[in-house]
Amino acid sequence: MKVSVQGRTRHFRTVTYDAAANQVHLIEQRLLPHEFKIVATKTFRETAKAISDMVVRGAGAIGATAAYGLAQGALSYRGRDMVRFKKHIQVVYQTLKQARPTAVDPVNAMNEVIRIMCRGESVEEKQSLAIAAAEEFANEDVAHCEAIGRHGARLIKDGMNVLTHCNAGWLAFVDVGSATAPMYEAQRLGRKFHVFCDETRPRCQGATLTAWELAQQGISHQVIADNAAGLLFERGEIDLVIVGSDRTLGRTGEVANKIGTYTKAVLARRHDVPFYVAIPLSTIDWELKSGHEIPIEQRAEAEVLGVWGVLGNGRREYVRVANPTSGAFNPGFDVTPADLITGIITPEGVFAPGELWRNRKRLV
Amino acid sequence: MKVSVQGRTRHFRTVTYDAAANQVHLIEQRLLPHEFKIVATKTFRETAKAISDMVVRGAGAIGATAAYGLAQGALSYRGRDMVRFKKHIQVVYQTLKQARPTAVDPVNAMNEVIRIMCRGESVEEKQSLAIAAAEEFANEDVAHCEAIGRHGARLIKDGMNVLTHCNAGWLAFVDVGSATAPMYEAQRLGRKFHVFCDETRPRCQGATLTAWELAQQGISHQVIADNAAGLLFERGEIDLVIVGSDRTLGRTGEVANKIGTYTKAVLARRHDVPFYVAIPLSTIDWELKSGHEIPIEQRAEAEVLGVWGVLGNGRREYVRVANPTSGAFNPGFDVTPADLITGIITPEGVFAPGELWRNRKRLV
Repeated sequence: MKVSVQGRTRHFRTVTYDAAANQVHLIEQRLLPHEFKIVATKTFRETAKAISDMVVRGAGAIGATAAYGLAQGALSYRGRDMVRFKKHIQVVYQTLKQARPTAVDPVNAMNEVIRIMCRGESVEEKQSLAIAAAEEFANEDVAHCEAIGRHGARLIKDGMNVLTHCNAGWLAFVDVGSATAPMYEAQRLGRKFHVFCDETRPRCQGATLTAWELAQQGISHQVIADNAAGLLFERGEIDLVIVGSDRTLGRTGEVANKIGTYTKAVLARRHDVPFYVAIPLSTIDWELKSGHEIPIEQRAEAEVLGVWGVLGNGRREYVRVANPTSGAFNPGFDVTPADLITGIITPEGVFAPGELWRNRKRLV
Repeated sequence: MKVSVQGRTRHFRTVTYDAAANQVHLIEQRLLPHEFKIVATKTFRETAKAISDMVVRGAGAIGATAAYGLAQGALSYRGRDMVRFKKHIQVVYQTLKQARPTAVDPVNAMNEVIRIMCRGESVEEKQSLAIAAAEEFANEDVAHCEAIGRHGARLIKDGMNVLTHCNAGWLAFVDVGSATAPMYEAQRLGRKFHVFCDETRPRCQGATLTAWELAQQGISHQVIADNAAGLLFERGEIDLVIVGSDRTLGRTGEVANKIGTYTKAVLARRHDVPFYVAIPLSTIDWELKSGHEIPIEQRAEAEVLGVWGVLGNGRREYVRVANPTSGAFNPGFDVTPADLITGIITPEGVFAPGELWRNRKRLV
């Protein structure tokens, strides 16, 4: 999407690949919204670290980053021995997979790259195919998000207030985003609406990233504490909820997403407000039979006990907020059951969560 | 309650009155949990400012502070003219009332002081009565909290996990607290239990004050992001919720409390977890007929857009977290309807919310 950098507006993707230098270029998302900067990772291990350190985050963006990371790892192999190359690729694959164990996108993305690499008959050919497949994966991610936008924009009417949680914006993908895609498309169609961005503690991706995105695109919005949505629902001031998903179970329609999503779904149901989840197909997990099988990442206590922000002088600092002698419990995700979800907005159209499995041939 | 200051453990109240100096002494709660400090206000206007600036906060504590503030204002009057004295008292009363328009406790507390002052036949007599009435009000606040503790402790069984929101601890009262009173009493009875403290954005009173209180008393606890409770409920890891209340409607059983309380009540209901509200009688509003009549204080956007914490060097600083070009919506309270509340723990026993009105003679 467009970003204003030093007064000039340019188009950016969250992740691109420089084949000549064998580097992955990433928007350093931990500096946003206070600073806009592109960083380059020189090895697949650096790329994996960028995923685990959350330089890059979000389903589509880490999928594309893993795809590029696999291509980067493939290209870094020196030699012609196919057996050793295969072993090397396995190391690359596992390293990138372990960077974010909860997410299914890196695995899907890398499986796709490997599928295409298999067509190659030499190391060199496989390397070229890996790069092409990663590029194709990133381009498809953008096309999928655009399709989500077209299907989802119909839900946003003039005068509506929309609630979103965390960042399922273009920063979470290669471009356009999932939960934000309908907003960007509705804006393009000239509709007037307002967005409430959940702050999304502990990492505050709503207050930082989603608010930054909406401000850059000129969409009316306000940040709210995660606690404030209940009052807004109760007053009838939320007409629609759109969130993203880290993993959606194709068999059950359950949605794993940023911690706090489930709470918003429970509130939406109590107040008969439609609750939509916008996802690219790569986020669907067709294997797991229950949301309870999804591993819930436990993150550092320091995230809850304090926060990163900027001081008056612009310096980025971590401040401890909580009592210094207390600990924290910090799960990264929760699982929203299908019965709380009105619809799942996919590039192929909007489906009830229970319809995913029946339509799996279209959605795989 | 007991506080360890420089290695020595002493007993403190949140608010006391120094009649000789005509000063109100307050724990400077905005410095907690990082620093423990007592401040003195020299005039009733300073005392009102301490309430509006949240040096002191919480139903009982601001009630007692307003009672002392009224006595302080009465004592500062020089002269014997009863008509002018009455006008002066009206100014004092209005100044202290306007310091926190949502709260009913300062009004109830000051009405009680004024009721007793009426017995005086001279300015001097009224001044003495005001001081005695304020002291009596503070002592009764403590006795009420102790009674809440005795009634509520029966709900806390060995091995339970208890969720609480914001700070309805002893820091919110003169001593002992409301939501925490059952915990302190259960601890005294030797029961083992664990408390999850909601961080309680935007002002983080759970992470700062409640966590500090529980740590000082040696009660097992963890801070959680407000978003994390949904997952805990879903996993069956919360057995009981106890919160406080800024205003409880005697006619309807509705509870106005810190923003986010309503959300926890909705979650508790979905998971059949008992949801209790612990209140002193002074918090009951017998006038209003509907929770929609309760004014919801809109607080500064900066509270949501950033946070106060301490840097590594111990310096207290505000950091901006949110996107610099975004605004916020920041309501201070929400209203939980009676049908989501299992019981209201009062000094007179535990009542279903619908039973308050029928028992009003006992509860006034």
